[in-house]
Amino acid sequence: MIQSKGYGAVSADAEVAGLEFSRREPDARDVVLEILFCGVCHSDLHQVRNDWGGSTYPIVPGHEIVGRVVKVGAEVTSFSVGDMAAIGCMVDSCRECSSCQDGLEQYCENAPTFTYNSPDRKGPGTTMGGYSNNIVADEAFVLKVPAGLDLAGTAPLLCAGITTYSPLKHWKVGPGQKVGVVGLGGLGHMALKLAKAFGAEVVLFTTSPDKKDDALALGASDVVISRDSDAMAAQMRTFDFILNTVSAKHDINPYLNLLKRDGAMVLVGLPSEPLPVGVFSLAAQRRTLAGSNIGGIAETQEMLDYCAEHKIVSDVEVIKIDYINTAFERMVKGDVKYRFVIDMASLK
Amino acid sequence: MIQSKGYGAVSADAEVAGLEFSRREPDARDVVLEILFCGVCHSDLHQVRNDWGGSTYPIVPGHEIVGRVVKVGAEVTSFSVGDMAAIGCMVDSCRECSSCQDGLEQYCENAPTFTYNSPDRKGPGTTMGGYSNNIVADEAFVLKVPAGLDLAGTAPLLCAGITTYSPLKHWKVGPGQKVGVVGLGGLGHMALKLAKAFGAEVVLFTTSPDKKDDALALGASDVVISRDSDAMAAQMRTFDFILNTVSAKHDINPYLNLLKRDGAMVLVGLPSEPLPVGVFSLAAQRRTLAGSNIGGIAETQEMLDYCAEHKIVSDVEVIKIDYINTAFERMVKGDVKYRFVIDMASLK
Repeated sequence: MIQSKGYGAVSADAEVAGLEFSRREPDARDVVLEILFCGVCHSDLHQVRNDWGGSTYPIVPGHEIVGRVVKVGAEVTSFSVGDMAAIGCMVDSCRECSSCQDGLEQYCENAPTFTYNSPDRKGPGTTMGGYSNNIVADEAFVLKVPAGLDLAGTAPLLCAGITTYSPLKHWKVGPGQKVGVVGLGGLGHMALKLAKAFGAEVVLFTTSPDKKDDALALGASDVVISRDSDAMAAQMRTFDFILNTVSAKHDINPYLNLLKRDGAMVLVGLPSEPLPVGVFSLAAQRRTLAGSNIGGIAETQEMLDYCAEHKIVSDVEVIKIDYINTAFERMVKGDVKYRFVIDMASLK
Repeated sequence: MIQSKGYGAVSADAEVAGLEFSRREPDARDVVLEILFCGVCHSDLHQVRNDWGGSTYPIVPGHEIVGRVVKVGAEVTSFSVGDMAAIGCMVDSCRECSSCQDGLEQYCENAPTFTYNSPDRKGPGTTMGGYSNNIVADEAFVLKVPAGLDLAGTAPLLCAGITTYSPLKHWKVGPGQKVGVVGLGGLGHMALKLAKAFGAEVVLFTTSPDKKDDALALGASDVVISRDSDAMAAQMRTFDFILNTVSAKHDINPYLNLLKRDGAMVLVGLPSEPLPVGVFSLAAQRRTLAGSNIGGIAETQEMLDYCAEHKIVSDVEVIKIDYINTAFERMVKGDVKYRFVIDMASLK
């Protein structure tokens, strides 16, 4: 076993605090990273607080991990000591089902091993995430960080980046299309940057008028205040695609009506309550409502390479790890532009 | 004007009864049909009772119309007196928008002219449907009835047939696929026959165990009682496509979980209340929920030709028109196998 220290929670109502724990001894195909930066995702807080059920304690969250390779197993072929590397939401999967065979490990029929709070397929106990000084993972689930990317701004690409990149690619967003992004948070600001980079005209929907200037600066061609029903009505049936990044319960029907015939709205936020859907809104123009969950490992590497080529990173506020509970509070209020990233040097 | 007689309602709380009315004088592009058979669709009753709002009275329902051409305008090229012809849910559309240009008049951006209860684009007043002795329509919206089809069994193809044929085609249902059909009514039994004819393995979902033998006889390879949670769980993640024909409010989430990765459930029933959708069910396997509304005119002709070639018609109970109010009551209870069709000779 190797020793680790990090920040985690010992119960659903405890604050996140410093703790020590051990990780499995790396095997021949494992890579050990010294973690340099870890992004703070809303799902970290959901799982710390057991909002979705199934959390086991102690829990060490964090799945937007960038670090330096400090050890490689004897059979590792893709990484060498000193390489910059990254780990996202998964560290393993069954590798045998049709989804794994298709490079879509996030849809593994036997459930992926998530980076934290999952039973470890390669060792005892539960996986521990990136609010930590180090991590062990099979090289098949470790990404290469292309040269030239800002490391702190890269960390959120591992979840917020791939979660928006994957559906934009799958639904073939590109030039000539009008695309909506609902919500300007961690996911939303990445969706905006990526859809713009793919050549689409991007309209940002927000409840907050004070986000308008930022959205325009990030590449939106227009900003619609979603509470303004006249402004919404003016957009009726004009969108090819809408990526909805809101994770709180909200009325999605006004957005469905903005889609053209055969248009799709894809949900990547994960409200825990069911969302009512008006069937007429769907049937009237053969519209589609879908969901999408992160992305596969090969696609995550493709996304990182794309971001390096197009000089895209996340806008981040870098924090010390002892600020994490305050960061959670601010994140819940939407008071971050647009992602907190922990500088893991602050753990020493 | 030409004189018509039929059955209709004079208010939302009146029974359907005999009445006389006039239709526009046919113009150079119009066809006049003597109506022989008209199917009884659940939406007829919804609109008679103004369940969806917007009904104007008197209302003469009926949009599953088969008849004989008795008059053609001077410029009509596709029909001659004596031809067997049919009219479905639409009698006109703007013919200029992108949907009309694409042969998808049902999604006309300026709204199709529905066969009844729509403002008439080519004349004064409101369109009147097929519970009647005759009808006038532009030849562009009149279908040819291929030889060899039973005329009473053909009538429901004009709504129940095309409403299920169109999404099965659009979502490319075919050999090697496992397809679910939810509900065994007018739409459901057509969906079952068509999906089977397209080469798919078809499983019928119903709340009624006593429909099992019928479903098997109609071509289902299996029947699942949807209230049996063990039976439902056994089907988890095995379906490529599900066509949901239920028009009452019901929980659609158990069906979403039966879809494979990238599977789609398409709603063709039209519950008037919103249906709650669990976002995890969609995102977990990149599933799609969509709606579909009837089909275009060219596709309706394609469907009629396909049905003639494959000897597919609707299973019907032929009734006299003075039985219509009883038929409505029985239809609401699901007491019909599987569509009432009015023999319009009974109107004389």
